Amino acid sequence: MVDILHRIGVKAPVAEVYSALTTNKGLADWWTKDTEGAGGEVGDELRFRFAAGGFDMQVRELDPGKRVLWEVVDGPEEWVGTHVDWVLDQKDDYAIVLFTHQGWREPVEFMHHCSTKWGVYLMSLKSLVETGTGAPHPHDLRIDDID
Amino acid sequence: MVDILHRIGVKAPVAEVYSALTTNKGLADWWTKDTEGAGGEVGDELRFRFAAGGFDMQVRELDPGKRVLWEVVDGPEEWVGTHVDWVLDQKDDYAIVLFTHQGWREPVEFMHHCSTKWGVYLMSLKSLVETGTGAPHPHDLRIDDID
Repeated sequence: MVDILHRIGVKAPVAEVYSALTTNKGLADWWTKDTEGAGGEVGDELRFRFAAGGFDMQVRELDPGKRVLWEVVDGPEEWVGTHVDWVLDQKDDYAIVLFTHQGWREPVEFMHHCSTKWGVYLMSLKSLVETGTGAPHPHDLRIDDID
Repeated sequence: MVDILHRIGVKAPVAEVYSALTTNKGLADWWTKDTEGAGGEVGDELRFRFAAGGFDMQVRELDPGKRVLWEVVDGPEEWVGTHVDWVLDQKDDYAIVLFTHQGWREPVEFMHHCSTKWGVYLMSLKSLVETGTGAPHPHDLRIDDID
């Protein structure tokens, strides 16, 4: 099992990052405009759609201001059964986001792609919370021939 | 052992990406302006410096247009002994870069940070080759409280 790891620091109160991960408007404003669901309650289902397909997640754990855990229940076969884990912590002026997309079975080329693309979307999350403007799909930065 | 994975597609001939990885000017124009060494021969030593420190690498393998492999010989203890592996391939209009920073002993918080930061620098490499302008240190995008 292999994981995608990232870390960003958002110059904002951690509650604002938590809100961007647990509300429909927040998620739609940094990840994809085509988001269904809110993610504010354990068990909530989230449907994220992109030009080429998408992911369905179920919220497995929530600890306000500290943690959000999603399980991928539908989408590309490499994603199904993996978990997206958000650990939050306030460190002086920064809300630190420790991100892990865990449980990939193999480090396939698509996993390399998804790692870089997650980084791009995390910078969109940082921008959204700090400036009010993110770059969600379809306004996201293209990184390669896949997306 | 855990790895950092990334993938970008650069709209250019793969030889141009290979050049940006094996010349002093190329490296200085996307990673850090403070680069010593060229990296065009196996055994070359490269010294990359940033505000907070840096990394010394030795070139272990070179296959023009296909692969560049560096070993970290000095720098933060988490980096020493790890390898930075660049696998290149031309796929239609895109030079595909499959990047692996391999051999981390533990998925520490600094590894999460370095994963995101590598992504930012890879987008700088893509920009350099496609447009002529990268964003090397000290013109790089700050991602968190570390850098």
